[in-house]
Amino acid sequence: MKWNRNLPIGTRDKLFKEAASAYDMEHLVNRSFHARGYQRIETPVIEFDDVFSAINDVNLYRFFDKKGRLTVLRPDMTSPIGRVISTTGVTPPLKLSYSGKVFRANEELAGERNEMTQAGIEIIGFASIKAEIECITSAIAVLKQLGISDFQIEIGHAAIYQAIIQTLDLQGSDEENFRQVLQNKSLFGIRSFVESHPSAMDDFILALPRLFGSVDTIREARALTENGVILEALAQMETIIGVVNVPEHLSVDIGLVQELHYYTGAIFRGYADMSAVHFLSGGRYDSLFAEFGEDNWPAVGLALNLDEIVSLKRRTLKEDAPDAKTFIHYSLETTYLAEDWLAKTPNSSLSFFDDLVESVAFARKWQFSKIIDVSGHTVREIDPDEEVLT
Amino acid sequence: MKWNRNLPIGTRDKLFKEAASAYDMEHLVNRSFHARGYQRIETPVIEFDDVFSAINDVNLYRFFDKKGRLTVLRPDMTSPIGRVISTTGVTPPLKLSYSGKVFRANEELAGERNEMTQAGIEIIGFASIKAEIECITSAIAVLKQLGISDFQIEIGHAAIYQAIIQTLDLQGSDEENFRQVLQNKSLFGIRSFVESHPSAMDDFILALPRLFGSVDTIREARALTENGVILEALAQMETIIGVVNVPEHLSVDIGLVQELHYYTGAIFRGYADMSAVHFLSGGRYDSLFAEFGEDNWPAVGLALNLDEIVSLKRRTLKEDAPDAKTFIHYSLETTYLAEDWLAKTPNSSLSFFDDLVESVAFARKWQFSKIIDVSGHTVREIDPDEEVLT
Repeated sequence: MKWNRNLPIGTRDKLFKEAASAYDMEHLVNRSFHARGYQRIETPVIEFDDVFSAINDVNLYRFFDKKGRLTVLRPDMTSPIGRVISTTGVTPPLKLSYSGKVFRANEELAGERNEMTQAGIEIIGFASIKAEIECITSAIAVLKQLGISDFQIEIGHAAIYQAIIQTLDLQGSDEENFRQVLQNKSLFGIRSFVESHPSAMDDFILALPRLFGSVDTIREARALTENGVILEALAQMETIIGVVNVPEHLSVDIGLVQELHYYTGAIFRGYADMSAVHFLSGGRYDSLFAEFGEDNWPAVGLALNLDEIVSLKRRTLKEDAPDAKTFIHYSLETTYLAEDWLAKTPNSSLSFFDDLVESVAFARKWQFSKIIDVSGHTVREIDPDEEVLT
Repeated sequence: MKWNRNLPIGTRDKLFKEAASAYDMEHLVNRSFHARGYQRIETPVIEFDDVFSAINDVNLYRFFDKKGRLTVLRPDMTSPIGRVISTTGVTPPLKLSYSGKVFRANEELAGERNEMTQAGIEIIGFASIKAEIECITSAIAVLKQLGISDFQIEIGHAAIYQAIIQTLDLQGSDEENFRQVLQNKSLFGIRSFVESHPSAMDDFILALPRLFGSVDTIREARALTENGVILEALAQMETIIGVVNVPEHLSVDIGLVQELHYYTGAIFRGYADMSAVHFLSGGRYDSLFAEFGEDNWPAVGLALNLDEIVSLKRRTLKEDAPDAKTFIHYSLETTYLAEDWLAKTPNSSLSFFDDLVESVAFARKWQFSKIIDVSGHTVREIDPDEEVLT
């Protein structure tokens, strides 16, 4: 049979230890959020297209259902949660947690993941800056529980970017261009932008590509602007960093912009040392819920990209020593006995071979340390690495 | 904003306790398989269409990728695992386990689920009937761990159906019609089928709609046929039932046919008492792997439909008494103190309200049994149901 042996763009298989550790990690993250009082929510992978109308900036997997309605594979969990809040009897304030797959129809580029497992929280209906602080605190708690110690959480504020584009009245491709320049921290790009868009904010904008790093950067930024919105944003960032109070894991990026455009307040991203890809992102989005209905709700959310964290752990940690495993060989007549040994022997596994020689070969290949043979009149222990007389 | 408040056909949200218990159940099932020595595998949700060419009998969600190649949302996990075995260096024998979503583009019919969470095992490369026995034994172990006691596992054999259609040389719509009649256990339908397809197997075929129930049914079936393939299939069923040896949970259905057509040997389905929907299905499929490459591998698999099991548990179990929960009110300045209380108080949760009155109202609504207020100079305990002086 002739068939396509490839996988679709941006997808991959996980086998054995990698699959098991990814699954364990997802479970640990969920348990950690649960322990902080979050309530779980699960929404479908397939949603109608208009649920994501606030996200017009990512590539979606789109297809028509049998009635010709446009459906998509969810690109994030935040918008579906917005739909739930606006269509069910459930009303905020709420502290929600989730985990599951999200999808982005990225082009064929190295390293992009089109299917990702995310886990996260959404704190909905709380206007207090406590919610931002909680997000970052939870994230740090989770990362420590996962055994990740070398990470940085970078804090920015969506209102800074918004204040600039409103002051300069940037729209369409002008705004898109500015966003790109900012994302790339391009000193040359920002200079030519300022030349073509001169304003009272020139000094502040020109400094943006280098306004990142320690908390002191906030003071530096404050000296460069008199814009009230920006000053308020900087003050919020300072409060968050002060209360979270783990300077070794926090830094700031005054020019930070998020891939998704719905953020309105403090925003954050997590990086591992030596990695350019962020594994954590989130922030305050106080106007997304207005998209879904009459009620608006302040909200802060955080998403962990578990696939990034899994590959991070694989890079930084040594392979565990293999567990001592026992393989149990039995006959049909002694199945009940094999079940007993399986139940009482940690890290044991039944052999479904009828022939002991096959069981031994398999045990050798998969590095079992011991075979227990219960197929005969007496139970015997076999070392897989020695010759066996049957 | 005007938008579609519905969900796509066959999908639904899970909230709070339902979502948490579905997640816990998936974890328990995975842990149970892991304890029996299964190795986890995860494959993408999106696959190329030809991976599922052996399954031409279910409705698939299909769409084109950006290069115009036909992709689908996986309708099962067995075919993707076949792809992995045939395209990677991984060679059987193997004992694999998985969990995740599968998708069926069913029409708008009551009760059909288009997104389902499945967990299961695939035992690949073992020709011994031990593999079938293991599948059923694992299933019973998992169901007992989930606290489900009222269930029946019905055992059939795909070779029985195959022997009939080969003997009668049934093809196309003739076969489809026969399958339908058998699935519906239609006495009238089977009579008119036999009239139009007379053969030496008439007595056996006519009896099929009533050949289900206790193990004695196998003896009854044996008396009605001399077909060697069918007699061998009946003998296998008898061996499996004898070794598994839990008569209270096992029954037989000589005319059982599975929704998916790739089975070749013993097949099984699990039902809860009082439920017409099966929550478990599986069987031996010894020729599926040949579809993917040169090597063929005997294989037995089992899939649990976790959504069915969740709704089953909701029907049969009483709601748990709500846990005693503690709500922790604090100020920005006492965040560190709140974190301490959160860590040392089981079932506790931080309040992100700045105002104690709001914290109390929330605690009342969500039935917290206690509020700990650490916002002031001294820590105090508050009963949410009493009036609070702030």
